[in-house]
Amino acid sequence: MRTEICERFGIEFPLLAFSHCRDVVAAVTNAGGMGVLGAVAYTPDRLEEELRWIDDHVDGRPYGVDVLVPGKIDESAERAGRGEGGLDTMLAAVPKEHWAFLAGLFAKYDVPPPDLDRARRGDSRGGTQVTKEGATELIDVSLSHPIRLIASALGTPPPLMVDKAKAAGIPVAALVGTAEHARRQVAAGVDLIVAQGGEAGGHTGEISTMVLVPEIVDTVAPIPVLAAGGIATGRQMAAALALGASGVWCGSVWLTTEEAETSPTVKAKMLAATSRDTVRSRSRTGKPARQLRSAWTDEWDDPASPGPLGMPLQMIVAHGAMAQIEKIAESGNPGARALANYFVGQCVGLMNTVKPARQVVYDMMRDFAEALDRLNTISGE
Amino acid sequence: MRTEICERFGIEFPLLAFSHCRDVVAAVTNAGGMGVLGAVAYTPDRLEEELRWIDDHVDGRPYGVDVLVPGKIDESAERAGRGEGGLDTMLAAVPKEHWAFLAGLFAKYDVPPPDLDRARRGDSRGGTQVTKEGATELIDVSLSHPIRLIASALGTPPPLMVDKAKAAGIPVAALVGTAEHARRQVAAGVDLIVAQGGEAGGHTGEISTMVLVPEIVDTVAPIPVLAAGGIATGRQMAAALALGASGVWCGSVWLTTEEAETSPTVKAKMLAATSRDTVRSRSRTGKPARQLRSAWTDEWDDPASPGPLGMPLQMIVAHGAMAQIEKIAESGNPGARALANYFVGQCVGLMNTVKPARQVVYDMMRDFAEALDRLNTISGE
Repeated sequence: MRTEICERFGIEFPLLAFSHCRDVVAAVTNAGGMGVLGAVAYTPDRLEEELRWIDDHVDGRPYGVDVLVPGKIDESAERAGRGEGGLDTMLAAVPKEHWAFLAGLFAKYDVPPPDLDRARRGDSRGGTQVTKEGATELIDVSLSHPIRLIASALGTPPPLMVDKAKAAGIPVAALVGTAEHARRQVAAGVDLIVAQGGEAGGHTGEISTMVLVPEIVDTVAPIPVLAAGGIATGRQMAAALALGASGVWCGSVWLTTEEAETSPTVKAKMLAATSRDTVRSRSRTGKPARQLRSAWTDEWDDPASPGPLGMPLQMIVAHGAMAQIEKIAESGNPGARALANYFVGQCVGLMNTVKPARQVVYDMMRDFAEALDRLNTISGE
Repeated sequence: MRTEICERFGIEFPLLAFSHCRDVVAAVTNAGGMGVLGAVAYTPDRLEEELRWIDDHVDGRPYGVDVLVPGKIDESAERAGRGEGGLDTMLAAVPKEHWAFLAGLFAKYDVPPPDLDRARRGDSRGGTQVTKEGATELIDVSLSHPIRLIASALGTPPPLMVDKAKAAGIPVAALVGTAEHARRQVAAGVDLIVAQGGEAGGHTGEISTMVLVPEIVDTVAPIPVLAAGGIATGRQMAAALALGASGVWCGSVWLTTEEAETSPTVKAKMLAATSRDTVRSRSRTGKPARQLRSAWTDEWDDPASPGPLGMPLQMIVAHGAMAQIEKIAESGNPGARALANYFVGQCVGLMNTVKPARQVVYDMMRDFAEALDRLNTISGE
């Protein structure tokens, strides 16, 4: 296929796959698309290890890295990020009420609690990597590998990221949910815009892909635009390209692949979920993020709860808790199963079978071609 | 073009235009699409007049009528609809608190209030037409004209509507926001499903067009599906057809046409609005409906307000108030201008110039063809 994205990255099919799982990244790259590793959950050492593994498995084919750099973070976290107290400062900023609510949740759902004292003492990385310092380390590790793209999943990439990437000759992509943000990103030096509709999984705005993509294509032309949000099939990819996108950026669809890191409980929930079973909630990260609706989101979004904190404080609160819930859910604990969830878009309703990631790419290619044939038949060409 | 919709209705371009304005309905029908008159705001006599006018202006070309028949209405309204007290029963069911809040709003925004006593005495039709009896009268008037489609904008059409339409040989369409509702509509005898994404104006769900359309196409096949929600351009129409739709159903895009009934204040707001300037609010009808965000929606959706009532009681509260606000806004009253709004989808961000409705159709045809050319160039065909 011939789009600016295919030419720029030397790929056959303009499909970028966002995943936290190195196997998915490599599989999509090897199948003719381009994998992008979500780095936010990793320590710099672990990221180094993951990227080395990918380098060993893609035979020089292109892949990218996504680092979450929030434009605006909680003030106390900001201070911590500047070295004024570090993790301790952040931990101290979490109100007692929130730890108590969390403890109450574990009791209510009859799930053995994680070591909350340990969490309070800071034996958890949750939250620290979305400070400026944390993100900078991840950027440095990424740029020491032959990556072909670096992306910022949240907010305008800081000048430091753009400068480092430009010096290394690596294009910078940014995810945006409004035309206004897209303008700001282009002004900040971004080379590629990912227009992400509100139906997307993870951090997301409220404008739908159908409206957002043409709006952003017109706003940032001639900067190429990838469409994201709700896309899990080839016909949706054809739709995105009809809207003016040069390619698509898919995240959710990999979560039910064979390779995915998704836990068995959450994978089963996703396979069973319909498009109605997601919610935009601040309960995991402190910023609105679409995810499976579960007892976890219901409890935090209930008016009786103390309400989620901002980012990254809510990440600190949620990090160890979600890890514990996921672990206990695998033993069959019903409360933990009720609470378990993960980020996913509305296209979860279209994700009904487990397939290898490679097969997802091939199916999208075939479905894309069929959609195009159908369109040509309709228009009599 | 060749889609089931084109063949079924004998139209050139599978674009259905929902409008409360007879001029738009006739213009779209005459330009090669098919207009559908939204009948909910009309009395039976007025509807008769409008349809006679359309008959005189479309020279036998196809058009349809849309009647809003809610599946579930407020109990006291239901009683009223069954003749148990009529409008009086409904009026009595509106709490004093809501009339007081409304009076307070007019005072706060320095807008001369409508005659609320008159409204309370029932000199308003607001709300009564969405009872079963009200809708039945509109259906009877519609079927006495050479309409080619009758649509139900909200909820499953009652057996009475389906039976009357079938007896008259008129296909029934229904708007749905979830696959589950689509299944129910098909079981109720509907011939054509309008899959309406959450970005749409008016009563709408939360699943986006990009996800909903392929889901519903797969669910109801071989029943044809029209895509609705966010669509205002030909490239979006191409996207909808790529998703598997047989055509599109557009409502918002006509509101800024030359012919539109939209008041000058609201039209100016729509032309200036971006895709971020809408909100799903219960403040006009009692059910979640996407509309321009304004002081009206902000005030009703504020936790300090008594909160919107259900349908149709909130329609009774809002009906005379909105008419007064619209009227006073035209005299330049700043409070009334701040309050004024109307139903519109997120595609309002793409509606930036006033054009004749005919021109909107022609522009969509051209834009559709260009999108298809672009897709074929991309795929190397």
